[in-house]
Amino acid sequence: MNNTDPLKNIRVVLTRPSHPGNIGAAARAMKTMGLDALYMVQPREFPHNDADVRASGARDVLQNAQVSDTLADALRGCVFAVATSSRRRELRHETMTARQAAQTLLQEAHAHRVALVFGNETSGLNGHEASLCNVWAHIPANPQYASLNLAAAVQIFAYELRMATETSAPASPPEFEPAAMEDVERLYEHFERTMIASGFVDPRQPKRLLARLRRLLARARLEIEEVNILRGFLKSVDRDRR
Amino acid sequence: MNNTDPLKNIRVVLTRPSHPGNIGAAARAMKTMGLDALYMVQPREFPHNDADVRASGARDVLQNAQVSDTLADALRGCVFAVATSSRRRELRHETMTARQAAQTLLQEAHAHRVALVFGNETSGLNGHEASLCNVWAHIPANPQYASLNLAAAVQIFAYELRMATETSAPASPPEFEPAAMEDVERLYEHFERTMIASGFVDPRQPKRLLARLRRLLARARLEIEEVNILRGFLKSVDRDRR
Repeated sequence: MNNTDPLKNIRVVLTRPSHPGNIGAAARAMKTMGLDALYMVQPREFPHNDADVRASGARDVLQNAQVSDTLADALRGCVFAVATSSRRRELRHETMTARQAAQTLLQEAHAHRVALVFGNETSGLNGHEASLCNVWAHIPANPQYASLNLAAAVQIFAYELRMATETSAPASPPEFEPAAMEDVERLYEHFERTMIASGFVDPRQPKRLLARLRRLLARARLEIEEVNILRGFLKSVDRDRR
Repeated sequence: MNNTDPLKNIRVVLTRPSHPGNIGAAARAMKTMGLDALYMVQPREFPHNDADVRASGARDVLQNAQVSDTLADALRGCVFAVATSSRRRELRHETMTARQAAQTLLQEAHAHRVALVFGNETSGLNGHEASLCNVWAHIPANPQYASLNLAAAVQIFAYELRMATETSAPASPPEFEPAAMEDVERLYEHFERTMIASGFVDPRQPKRLLARLRRLLARARLEIEEVNILRGFLKSVDRDRR
């Protein structure tokens, strides 16, 4: 946590990037706007010379990048994550423009770690990845050709984050402490187990109901205390059944 | 002139671009935001396979691109041109942020052709090129590393232009008709000739005075009528001297 520069508390997460050149260009885009925390989930090729070349003066961002196997790992320690898309058809959850999302992310980043998540160049974010994020954000674009290059999309969001710093101030003293994403994830898993054990969810056809539960938990932006209460409740349900 | 979509009246001018890949990426950046008029001044390599590859679905923008020898040629027919830079030290003339410049450009583009001018990747715009533009615009960036890739800078300006369309409306009926840039240029040249002939400017050391005159004319954003008046005045001065 950096208490003086909220931009340092914002992770850029590239999920399954295909082209190392895009990774390097994204690192450069980040650094030009003052971001430096790059995370990658299963990059196809990294490290790679193309990444170094396109990073130009931002190779330090590549050198400090974190690579993980799952998006959940990359989000560990964050309290808020924005999924990005240029395709409106993907939109679910709450949706925002890039400008609105930047303002929200920056506001949170004064006191917490947050993440901005980009999908694969061709396929975007898959449903599971998206379900781990709290809101969707899209870049307004030409409806006839909305295919932004990955690094170009990173550049726009990074730029909007920097622009947001000019008007943003720390929130008034937080009234509550938001739960970390991994704690919300454990709560979700607990719900899933308990709902199956109780017979409420059919484990052979759980999909739709559990997906809606996940969406609800993501949207709700739970406090730590609320997670604890709900998990306590689930434990009591588990105990009663035995 | 396109009377329904002001974005079509905005030229993106790349001055002496070094890397064809950047040209292609700039074309893609433009098209994602609804821009399609690409102009280039002395590109080092164009056409080029790297440009086609990086343009992706925007090769039509490359195919319709106009190539010229001088920036003045690329600006022909425009009434307003914005010079871009990420380096504050270059700033002269009136300066704006990218967001402000986009709003101004779009406002003008409802009724006129306008241009957004980018310099060479390494050296930016030279003094003469800059002097042909009316205002400077810069992208707010990390002061420790403000080195945006050329196509990334095009992407941000194009994005701001598209964002500006959401709030922009045609200006109230224009109160005057702005002069085309080439007419202002001819006026400047006329001033120069007349000032030298009259002895006001020493042709061996004209630099500073003429540079200031050029800046003044660029900043003033002359109307057609004003250009005609000034040229009429200069002609009368020329006649008197003979």
